[in-house]
Amino acid sequence: MTTSKEIRLKSRPVGLPTADNFELASVDLPAPGPGEVQVRNLFMSVDPYMRGRMYDRPSYVPPFQIGQALQGGAIGTVVASNDPSLKEGDLVQSMFGWREAFNAPASALQKSDAHGLPPQALLGVAGMPGMTAYAGLLRIAALKEGDVVFVSAAAGAVGSVVCQIAKLKGHTVIGSAGGAEKCAFLKEIGVDHVIDYKATKDLTAALMEAAPKGIDVYFENVGGEHLEAAINAARPFARFALCGMISQYNETGEPKGPSNIIQAVGKSLRLEGFIVSNHYDMLPDFLRDMSAWIASGQMKWKDTVDEGIAAAPGAFIKLFKGENLGKMLVRLS
Amino acid sequence: MTTSKEIRLKSRPVGLPTADNFELASVDLPAPGPGEVQVRNLFMSVDPYMRGRMYDRPSYVPPFQIGQALQGGAIGTVVASNDPSLKEGDLVQSMFGWREAFNAPASALQKSDAHGLPPQALLGVAGMPGMTAYAGLLRIAALKEGDVVFVSAAAGAVGSVVCQIAKLKGHTVIGSAGGAEKCAFLKEIGVDHVIDYKATKDLTAALMEAAPKGIDVYFENVGGEHLEAAINAARPFARFALCGMISQYNETGEPKGPSNIIQAVGKSLRLEGFIVSNHYDMLPDFLRDMSAWIASGQMKWKDTVDEGIAAAPGAFIKLFKGENLGKMLVRLS
Repeated sequence: MTTSKEIRLKSRPVGLPTADNFELASVDLPAPGPGEVQVRNLFMSVDPYMRGRMYDRPSYVPPFQIGQALQGGAIGTVVASNDPSLKEGDLVQSMFGWREAFNAPASALQKSDAHGLPPQALLGVAGMPGMTAYAGLLRIAALKEGDVVFVSAAAGAVGSVVCQIAKLKGHTVIGSAGGAEKCAFLKEIGVDHVIDYKATKDLTAALMEAAPKGIDVYFENVGGEHLEAAINAARPFARFALCGMISQYNETGEPKGPSNIIQAVGKSLRLEGFIVSNHYDMLPDFLRDMSAWIASGQMKWKDTVDEGIAAAPGAFIKLFKGENLGKMLVRLS
Repeated sequence: MTTSKEIRLKSRPVGLPTADNFELASVDLPAPGPGEVQVRNLFMSVDPYMRGRMYDRPSYVPPFQIGQALQGGAIGTVVASNDPSLKEGDLVQSMFGWREAFNAPASALQKSDAHGLPPQALLGVAGMPGMTAYAGLLRIAALKEGDVVFVSAAAGAVGSVVCQIAKLKGHTVIGSAGGAEKCAFLKEIGVDHVIDYKATKDLTAALMEAAPKGIDVYFENVGGEHLEAAINAARPFARFALCGMISQYNETGEPKGPSNIIQAVGKSLRLEGFIVSNHYDMLPDFLRDMSAWIASGQMKWKDTVDEGIAAAPGAFIKLFKGENLGKMLVRLS
């Protein structure tokens, strides 16, 4: 018998989540039953999309339940196996994050190989966020020659990969982020025009200065004023990949919609939302390209790592305060 | 020498245009010069998009100029020709609306054949508005089997064609219009669920009642509350063809954007604006299909006709008050 600490949803957040919305609990894990394995997590991921699952409403994934452990991407090692497909020491990915250890059917886990990378890269640049960047930029925004690309939350886990893929393909890239540290990282990864939105009064003017002829692609992670500025700066036939709108996830009143949406008509804009899970047919291409980019040193990334399961709620809350650079992770063992 | 009365832009409207923004003037027309013809207009079109050209700003068409005659679709007959390509009595379409008669190079005119229809149909169901409906529904919204289709301004020149094409292709159609007369017309053309938005407090609720499983296509002519309701009622992967947003054309403050735009992410919605002039490669298909639908009695339409050039500004203003049923026209001779 082993013990695992886990984070449960104690109450549904109203507005920005607080520590009170979460509770730490301990569970005893028996030996894994037939077909099961026991996994000790190395790292868990916190991602903005999890905020949506804290609302009790229909969505593309069911809501988290009060009193139950939260879920999310995690990478761990098998510590006991009762299934021939996995053995002790195997590296596995799962959606059983927010807990130190767990038992699960072997079939619910994805046996993984970090190919010489730190295993937590499978939760970031080489995992779901990287794949989100790849699918959103190449399929949804349908990046094509000559496009000028604007990326918001550009220093985040998804945005920083978007910027670098666009640069690798020869595009002019404008990235927006908040604060000097993030902006320095954007310059380091080759972003052509860096906008520190916290130091910018008029985002449209800043964007038009960076792209006097306008933008062709907008990779949307933020919403609100960023979306309005992108619409203002869009050239005819610009494509917007709507990946997320983190500025709105904790809105308690009526969020402000883009007041200039009418420009989408005259400019023939295309705004398209997407969920990465609908685009996993691109996974082989993504893994091939991303492996090559990492191996050649052309893809850089940053992690922000908090320590221990008790830190997970705080790590999650940091996402909405913009306190993470790159991928936000919690180290669990 | 003949005389033609024309309507000029006297001042740029602020908000809803008024009669004061226009002036009636007379011009003398000499005999047409070499390569020119003289045309007497039968009908001119007023269309919502013309409001955009009254602002002094860059757009997909240049702004109207103060003191000059307005422009727009018109159908007329050649009354004098100095070019071998056109002869007296020929029916021609042009952008020289807002005037009784004009001289123009023959090359600037489109020789037309009404194929037994009243000639003004070439300004409506069998012309630009019909083509707008066709391209928007079939290409931009990419109508496919089983789609539930929602159309706003459904009794208008474009909307009523959208409704009927969707019905002809076997779809469930929900149409929104204001007032009993328009709603009766929608029932007459086979719309399955008619929403009188002027009699509806909660457009989202009305839409969800008409389409309990949600909508797959939204043909957007109105903006504002209609767009929000469509987003609320959209099923995953719904496609929005953004044709116009008439509720916003006269907005003097900051228009209200769709506060629920974030749903575009989770539902993988696609919102795409378009301008019919970019889709004229579909014209042969449109003419083939529309001719067949009209010939078989499967396509109905209504015109609202005001009389004489002096009535043109009032006819234009009616568009924004919703006082037209079907295509708004001015008879000029």
